Amino acid sequence: MTATNRQILLASRPVGEPSVDNFRLVETPLPSLADGQVLVRHHYLSLDPYMRGRMNDSKSYAEPQPLDEVMIGGTVGEVVESRNDRFEVGDTVVGMGGWQEFQVADGQPGQLRKVDTTHIPPQAYLGAVGMPGITAWYGLTQIIDPKPTETVVVSAASGAVGSVVGQLAKERGARVVGLAGGPEKCRYVVGELGFDACIDYREHPDVRSLSAALKTACPNGIDGYFENVGGIILDAVMLRSNAFSRIAMCGMIAGYNGEPTPMQIPALILINRMTIRGFIVSEHMDFWPEALKELGSLYAAGRLRYRESIAQGLESAPEAFLGLLKGRNFGKQLVKLY
Amino acid sequence: MTATNRQILLASRPVGEPSVDNFRLVETPLPSLADGQVLVRHHYLSLDPYMRGRMNDSKSYAEPQPLDEVMIGGTVGEVVESRNDRFEVGDTVVGMGGWQEFQVADGQPGQLRKVDTTHIPPQAYLGAVGMPGITAWYGLTQIIDPKPTETVVVSAASGAVGSVVGQLAKERGARVVGLAGGPEKCRYVVGELGFDACIDYREHPDVRSLSAALKTACPNGIDGYFENVGGIILDAVMLRSNAFSRIAMCGMIAGYNGEPTPMQIPALILINRMTIRGFIVSEHMDFWPEALKELGSLYAAGRLRYRESIAQGLESAPEAFLGLLKGRNFGKQLVKLY
Repeated sequence: MTATNRQILLASRPVGEPSVDNFRLVETPLPSLADGQVLVRHHYLSLDPYMRGRMNDSKSYAEPQPLDEVMIGGTVGEVVESRNDRFEVGDTVVGMGGWQEFQVADGQPGQLRKVDTTHIPPQAYLGAVGMPGITAWYGLTQIIDPKPTETVVVSAASGAVGSVVGQLAKERGARVVGLAGGPEKCRYVVGELGFDACIDYREHPDVRSLSAALKTACPNGIDGYFENVGGIILDAVMLRSNAFSRIAMCGMIAGYNGEPTPMQIPALILINRMTIRGFIVSEHMDFWPEALKELGSLYAAGRLRYRESIAQGLESAPEAFLGLLKGRNFGKQLVKLY
Repeated sequence: MTATNRQILLASRPVGEPSVDNFRLVETPLPSLADGQVLVRHHYLSLDPYMRGRMNDSKSYAEPQPLDEVMIGGTVGEVVESRNDRFEVGDTVVGMGGWQEFQVADGQPGQLRKVDTTHIPPQAYLGAVGMPGITAWYGLTQIIDPKPTETVVVSAASGAVGSVVGQLAKERGARVVGLAGGPEKCRYVVGELGFDACIDYREHPDVRSLSAALKTACPNGIDGYFENVGGIILDAVMLRSNAFSRIAMCGMIAGYNGEPTPMQIPALILINRMTIRGFIVSEHMDFWPEALKELGSLYAAGRLRYRESIAQGLESAPEAFLGLLKGRNFGKQLVKLY
């Protein structure tokens, strides 16, 4: 085993759009383990939109990513050395190991979670059966809570979160309409994920056009919306929202680089007696067992489909992350580290 | 008794700001009663901001007020003739009698409600112990639901709804900060209604200034906001909102004349994991008994204070209504009809 770790640090904070120059790859020696510690070799790193928010030095729900430290990120890997009774060499473990090839974990409760890879591939624990899947589950079941007669709209519908939202909504009998960027993603959302319709938002650059497309795709209006994007998509959805509709606000990627993204007609919240709720899945850990149970069962039954975009090697992570922010990925964005 | 009724009709729809020319006063003969009908002489007409929305011919939660028909409005009055066993001459009754001196009611269940005026003056059933009070109660208890350690902000704090919101929040131990127009209203909100602080929004014409004033008045941030106004007040409150804060959206008077009132930073809903919910009290009739019980008890105990602005005579209603929309009233706006 190599005694060297490779890590990607946040080198500087982006002004507007981030670039590869905001990151720095370093090599560091791996320390010897102390009692209780575990050495994990990462197989996959998860790339997720929330990381963009952490790169800013502004008030948000989480502390900013510190400069010159390893970028935050979910990982799945294998225990290669253990001085902790709870972990054995060969265990597959999920954790927030960060953008690096190895992590030395203290093995505190909650830091590393052993997972069973008999029926579920390890990287699925970073996607549909992991944090993104649980995010989808929480917003759909605890905020939107669709009835079988209702219509649910999902933005970023081919992504790690959106794809699960739509499939869970279909399981509950709702009509499901996705929004995705480009005809290939839209074909996948309808053809493989089983959504009832998908709108290519790139064909609708203004609120009026997008709203008209939503009217066609949602003839009975919109009862629930899972928001990953913000901006004019939110405005267009609100114009088509029914009385007592619910919006689960999970991401606002449209404004991540500081662009203003006002909500044009907030009076619609009153006129349509809407509920809009922002949430962060890590604050609802009590729901994780219930969510994982449904997601795991659906996956095992072949009823939870997803795609992966896999970049090769730690050094490809910055470019892959920037691509994710621009929607160049297709499905869950991972980096294969080993 | 006169055999003539005087009525105010909606003569035309406003383009932008409404004017007295949008209304027309007519005299009409009173019909003879059919079996089951009741003739009510109105003592007070209630004027409320929601009426402005009804004057528009646009999609909203309620049908537009039809042209050339009697303007919608809450009334309290006295039965002066009855061909219905459930009502006797002399009964005090509350209903949606409209802008007119008399109404002929069919006496259907829910149309007229007999009220007890032994301890509560009849016009209070149009205010603190009526629809505005129940509106306040619903938004505060069912959406904001403040804990004793929390801070609640109320716009239009001296008004029929806002004054009750603040007093109910004080009953629950919260810190309560009002927003009102002018020093006289602010003195009343703190001195007579018992709010902890009141901000004169007229002294703060932009978001930055208003946000700074809110920071001073709410040193622990804002946990609940009862929205009657919209526009920059909403933006400023959101900038000071705490994690898991709640906004009860009851009115957006800032945009009633068609002015754009965008919400500048909807991403704050996500960043602060906020819940924003619009509501209309008439859709929650199941809560009315519970609400009226608390409001009546508080009033009887002298712990529910309010002010009234009373215009004299039906012909004064249009001018008084336009004044209400501009905040020229002080407390509950009524028209004394008899």
